[in-house]
Amino acid sequence: MSDDAASTAKHLSRQEVEQIDVYWRAANYLTVGQIYLLDNPLLRKPLKLEHVKPRLLGHWGTSPGLSFIYAHLNRIIRKQDANMIYICGPGHGGPAMVANAYLEGSYTARYPDVTRNEKGMGKLFRQFSFPGGIPSHAAPDVPGSINEGGELGYSLSHAFGAAFDNPDLVVACVVGDGEAETGALATAWHSNKFLNPQRDGAVLPILHLNGYKIANPTLLARIPHEELCSLFVGYGYDPIFVEGDDPASMHQMMAAALDEAMTRIQSIQTASREDYDAHANRPRWPMIILRSPKGWTGPKEVDGLKTEGFWRSHQVPLSGLADNPKHLKLLEEWLLSYGPEELFDAKGAPIAEIVETTPQGSRRMGSNPHANGGMLRKSLEMPDLEAYAVSLSEPGAVKAEGTKVMGAFLRDVMQANVTSRNFRIVGPDETASNRLQNVFEVTDRTWMASVLPEDTNLGPNGRVMEILSEHTCQGWLEGYLLTGRHGFFSCYEAFIHIVDSMFNQHAKWLDAARDIPWRQPISSLNYLITSHVWHQEHNGFSHQDPGFIDVALNKKADVVRVYLPPDANTLLCITDHVLRTWDRINIVVAGKPPLWQWLSLEEARVHCKAGLGIWHWASTEGGLEPDVVLACAGDVPTLETLAAVGILREFMPELRVRVVNVVDLMALQPKERHPHGLADTEFDAMFTKDRPVIFSYHGYPWTIHRLTYRRTNHHNFHVRGYNEEGTTTTPFDMTVLNGLDRFSLVLSVIEQVAPTDPQAAQLKQLMQAKLLAHHDYIRQHGQDMPEILNWQWKANAGQAPPASPSTSPH
Amino acid sequence: MSDDAASTAKHLSRQEVEQIDVYWRAANYLTVGQIYLLDNPLLRKPLKLEHVKPRLLGHWGTSPGLSFIYAHLNRIIRKQDANMIYICGPGHGGPAMVANAYLEGSYTARYPDVTRNEKGMGKLFRQFSFPGGIPSHAAPDVPGSINEGGELGYSLSHAFGAAFDNPDLVVACVVGDGEAETGALATAWHSNKFLNPQRDGAVLPILHLNGYKIANPTLLARIPHEELCSLFVGYGYDPIFVEGDDPASMHQMMAAALDEAMTRIQSIQTASREDYDAHANRPRWPMIILRSPKGWTGPKEVDGLKTEGFWRSHQVPLSGLADNPKHLKLLEEWLLSYGPEELFDAKGAPIAEIVETTPQGSRRMGSNPHANGGMLRKSLEMPDLEAYAVSLSEPGAVKAEGTKVMGAFLRDVMQANVTSRNFRIVGPDETASNRLQNVFEVTDRTWMASVLPEDTNLGPNGRVMEILSEHTCQGWLEGYLLTGRHGFFSCYEAFIHIVDSMFNQHAKWLDAARDIPWRQPISSLNYLITSHVWHQEHNGFSHQDPGFIDVALNKKADVVRVYLPPDANTLLCITDHVLRTWDRINIVVAGKPPLWQWLSLEEARVHCKAGLGIWHWASTEGGLEPDVVLACAGDVPTLETLAAVGILREFMPELRVRVVNVVDLMALQPKERHPHGLADTEFDAMFTKDRPVIFSYHGYPWTIHRLTYRRTNHHNFHVRGYNEEGTTTTPFDMTVLNGLDRFSLVLSVIEQVAPTDPQAAQLKQLMQAKLLAHHDYIRQHGQDMPEILNWQWKANAGQAPPASPSTSPH
Repeated sequence: MSDDAASTAKHLSRQEVEQIDVYWRAANYLTVGQIYLLDNPLLRKPLKLEHVKPRLLGHWGTSPGLSFIYAHLNRIIRKQDANMIYICGPGHGGPAMVANAYLEGSYTARYPDVTRNEKGMGKLFRQFSFPGGIPSHAAPDVPGSINEGGELGYSLSHAFGAAFDNPDLVVACVVGDGEAETGALATAWHSNKFLNPQRDGAVLPILHLNGYKIANPTLLARIPHEELCSLFVGYGYDPIFVEGDDPASMHQMMAAALDEAMTRIQSIQTASREDYDAHANRPRWPMIILRSPKGWTGPKEVDGLKTEGFWRSHQVPLSGLADNPKHLKLLEEWLLSYGPEELFDAKGAPIAEIVETTPQGSRRMGSNPHANGGMLRKSLEMPDLEAYAVSLSEPGAVKAEGTKVMGAFLRDVMQANVTSRNFRIVGPDETASNRLQNVFEVTDRTWMASVLPEDTNLGPNGRVMEILSEHTCQGWLEGYLLTGRHGFFSCYEAFIHIVDSMFNQHAKWLDAARDIPWRQPISSLNYLITSHVWHQEHNGFSHQDPGFIDVALNKKADVVRVYLPPDANTLLCITDHVLRTWDRINIVVAGKPPLWQWLSLEEARVHCKAGLGIWHWASTEGGLEPDVVLACAGDVPTLETLAAVGILREFMPELRVRVVNVVDLMALQPKERHPHGLADTEFDAMFTKDRPVIFSYHGYPWTIHRLTYRRTNHHNFHVRGYNEEGTTTTPFDMTVLNGLDRFSLVLSVIEQVAPTDPQAAQLKQLMQAKLLAHHDYIRQHGQDMPEILNWQWKANAGQAPPASPSTSPH
Repeated sequence: MSDDAASTAKHLSRQEVEQIDVYWRAANYLTVGQIYLLDNPLLRKPLKLEHVKPRLLGHWGTSPGLSFIYAHLNRIIRKQDANMIYICGPGHGGPAMVANAYLEGSYTARYPDVTRNEKGMGKLFRQFSFPGGIPSHAAPDVPGSINEGGELGYSLSHAFGAAFDNPDLVVACVVGDGEAETGALATAWHSNKFLNPQRDGAVLPILHLNGYKIANPTLLARIPHEELCSLFVGYGYDPIFVEGDDPASMHQMMAAALDEAMTRIQSIQTASREDYDAHANRPRWPMIILRSPKGWTGPKEVDGLKTEGFWRSHQVPLSGLADNPKHLKLLEEWLLSYGPEELFDAKGAPIAEIVETTPQGSRRMGSNPHANGGMLRKSLEMPDLEAYAVSLSEPGAVKAEGTKVMGAFLRDVMQANVTSRNFRIVGPDETASNRLQNVFEVTDRTWMASVLPEDTNLGPNGRVMEILSEHTCQGWLEGYLLTGRHGFFSCYEAFIHIVDSMFNQHAKWLDAARDIPWRQPISSLNYLITSHVWHQEHNGFSHQDPGFIDVALNKKADVVRVYLPPDANTLLCITDHVLRTWDRINIVVAGKPPLWQWLSLEEARVHCKAGLGIWHWASTEGGLEPDVVLACAGDVPTLETLAAVGILREFMPELRVRVVNVVDLMALQPKERHPHGLADTEFDAMFTKDRPVIFSYHGYPWTIHRLTYRRTNHHNFHVRGYNEEGTTTTPFDMTVLNGLDRFSLVLSVIEQVAPTDPQAAQLKQLMQAKLLAHHDYIRQHGQDMPEILNWQWKANAGQAPPASPSTSPH
């Protein structure tokens, strides 16, 4: 026995050890019961095949370790009246999390029919992974969960997100050694450079080395102790090791480790809150490395093959019970090894000794309101939009940088809520690049690492969180929202795909959580998708991908919103709106360079509320049915559409053109598919039943087809968008490469409405000449033609007598 | 000066230092020239505004460091005749990579018009980030590049992929400190546990701490030296530090560091190749940590603000030259500071002293064939399929586990190519879970960490690569393919979304590389997407997402293929096919549980070649125009469709049903959009011009609409697929929840063809009763009804006299 072990061997009294162990045995019994039993929950009758589920589903391997940790955290909570939540990285250990919530009473509080007696235990067992029952993971239905852990990698960033701005909270985060191999998790350890002990809570990572994944050892369990220790010292932690397999001594070591970790956390917090120079003293937070057998306390061997402490414990160690009476017997012995008759009283309730070890009320980790964040959520104070609005005398009178205008608004949202400490902005080093720099007038970038004199806008109290990891940004924000706060994620459009899968998981969480009555709504996850496909002059093809919208549209309709504001005032209205919503994911796509402005704030409000609308000031239909509809969604498509309309007004003044702008993409869907969807009659009124529609869209063109294929006039929709044509070239050339430019749009109109008209034929020649001139000009001058750079909307062009078309470029 | 520094201060002779420095100055000059100059490349005239590009694009900050490293690697290559390639993590330093390839002559070899004289230099400068020119990153057009580095995170996994099975290759991999914050990079460091010095080459990571991202410091540059050192020791490396800003002493230190690193690499390799116990001696590979100023040698200050050694150097340190003559002057001074007249001769060619420092022929990093892997690619030896085929007397006669059959084939592909050492399988700990376990009969999982006696199929020579990081799997495989080898990636369907963005980048690389004549084709990236949405009993909702196909379909049509084999023999044919292809990404979706088999190997060959086809044996159209088409794509949809057809044959024997199975999803697209696309006439012949089509699809239903919206009969397509309805339930219940089950399909048919027919009305009642019975049964029994579990295709059901429909469930 080492010195360390010797010193901790007597940390708890014998009675305390037994109390924790009896609780742990009960949790393990309830876990095995959920995986296996359909009936006979207390094993008061000999176990028969008819008591066993026909399909054995779930994951045993990680579960005993999760319950071991739960038991010890309960001791600490009671001892210190600590405010703790438990993030379960290996979420497939769902039955363990349910078992613990049941033992402490949180489960029955949420699900009154799952009573703490034999009948309730029968329900508890039966429902697990059973049709009509509950899922197998730490899903939203599990009290105390904010991390489903179905897809691995996000526990630690969720934990930090939960701890930010919650100074009294300790977030215990169990990281499985499988999960630790993922990229998202491997970089999330660096979150400790963003946690300020003065204003934030603590995260206590517990790296659980149970050694195996599905069929493999884990890397971190198979490197030398010094290497492992060095890794976490390098990540900035101070690891405390708890290693072994003998329950009695493991209880002693774990209790000592947790006491030590909590002492260190408290001393860091006390020191920082008394007198503190954050940069000089970035704390070295404690963490626990727990090495315990996979499938601990389960069958040692099955069919002569090692099972406890090996990957064969990962899911269901004993299977094929119908064909193998020995396995049934082994299962019975396994269940009885926990001594259910000593754990549950005559009625089947946990014995008093167990109940006494659990915290009370909202101190129970399954009942802590931080894990049901909507309970704590307070709406944001929102400044009036008027102060930020771009004022314009008429459409196209001025230019503005949309995201910069938005940045001023976000600055004041930040300021208005500074005392509530419930709003943060995250982004991968792009807040300024995305022109939201005004927020730095009122706050810094959070930074706990060292600073140099030349640094700007870095500070321990910053509320802008930047790390070059979209995963970490997303995980922090999710954790922050799930614990009842608000936030915004700004990202380069192409690289938001890095978190596609995290997006999917969060959307699924929201969808499932809506059906759980006790889950209170949380703030929406808001994305600003910018530096988009049409403005990638510095970076080119690798930075051009507007497909995140398509990933989003695959999720449940009512969870997702996609907004494409055409100018700064619409962007303001949408930003204001999304920050007031809950239980959704809002995707706002807007570019950052100076662009012409179209709508006043009032007009923008009306337009955003409707989701789409006819722009009468740009249309020439004059109260009659139009000859053609030019529709647009997105800032650059809107610009090109209006430029095309300008050409048509000048050269084909008799043509009745309708301009429709779409700001809320969901409005295009059928009403039955999405709550924002337009009814067919409204859609037909807008897009006509039979006129050609030239639709300029920000992203991949088939997205519009996918949304509108059931509409009356769909066969007349001709969609232009991004076709994966691009490189480092001029902004206008990007539209030309993809056929979204004004000249190509005019050509499309001619082809649809007047393919044989002689006047149109002249215009067609002119447009083709323009495209050639553009091609030559940019290759010679390296920038767009002056007529493109200096183009401006002429409000009265259609009212003047039409100029004759000319074939010479002008 | 520390002892270390003192000992390295005299590592090179003064002349050697000067030689490297003159090369480096030339590279820097060429880099600045590319970013700024339109003309006057040698600055033989005073710099005027007209010589400067109108739009200044590109990234200066990282470039001088990249060239510094390149120069020093050149010295090592020459000294040791080393076989090296250079992976440039910060790919936005593209102009530096181009500059170095130009100096060594590789660039002119590939682009003969970019000569090494004044005229060629003028072209070199002008083309950079210029319309009609070259992109700004280390894109496929850059000789020597296999890592574009547009999206950060993948350099290190690419590097390891390149080194596997290339025992003589040293892959120098520059990791930017920005990139180092990404998840993908943070976990890729662990790749060293998978590199066997006996059979693989070496990776020499060079962590480049230039300290800043776009507008922020980097984390790794702002943690204490000991912490940084500890981190990389923990990752298993032995870091050598090179830190400073004085070029002369930095040259000395870098040369000493590289000599030391190469010595250590050679001694590891020598030791391992002589007498070696891999597990006892997992080597501690060297790495270099280079700390140098961002924008090194650039303007120290601009407008009074610190620029060199700060984030303001990130892109273009001097801008607004048209409005600011001082900036123009500064630019001229900056360019002249490199002494172009000393670097280039009268004709503008690099002076002999520079040319002499570069390696020759294919030792030049821009000309190394490993970085143009198609040059080295050798087709796989492929065993005949007959030996693996499932033999079946008639459709639906036997069941088989598709991926297990495939596993036997992959085992023998592995074996047939074992001496070529050019085939690997990657996956996140799922090879066995995905039923490919037969491959372990001939190879192990690669494992260089420690082993225990109970371990199975782990070994240093394994050719199956498993790490619980989809990013690392993808990056390894990409690196392996890009250097001319072959591979396969098997993954859970939902979690392949984790690499959406890597997929996008690789697809873009392939698309761009096809247009570059000197890039030789590389093997396709092949995915087996399994453990799919319809078989997630253990895991439920979080594991259900068939949307990767939609991400893939957004990329250029000819790069992407999506296959949905309905049974084992079609899966075999598809697997055989994809392993023979090049320059594509093939996505194969197939489930793993035992399913009924439909086609003999010969039939499967014909079916796969066509891409889709009518299954006459299942159809009842009898040579006439069908009343309804039941189409299906995917194994579970095919099963449910045939089961529905079975019901229709029994209860509506007069109904003329056509069954169409789609194995190649691309065949549905218009011929103009995809090379596999069916011509409209063929499509109409298959799907009719006017009959209802009930299409059962594996993924999200709108995908089929997106592919077919231009087809004649599209308005009659009724697509069933995954609608984000799911939980942990029975497999058949998953289809019921999403309306893809046999009963719902029959109901759809009735609604389309005979909504008012009394016989059909009876069948409708029966189907509704079946759905209710299913609902009740699974809630009671926890598994699917016997009639579902025991269902089998009855080949002659339609020939027998029809039984009367009955409303009572049977």
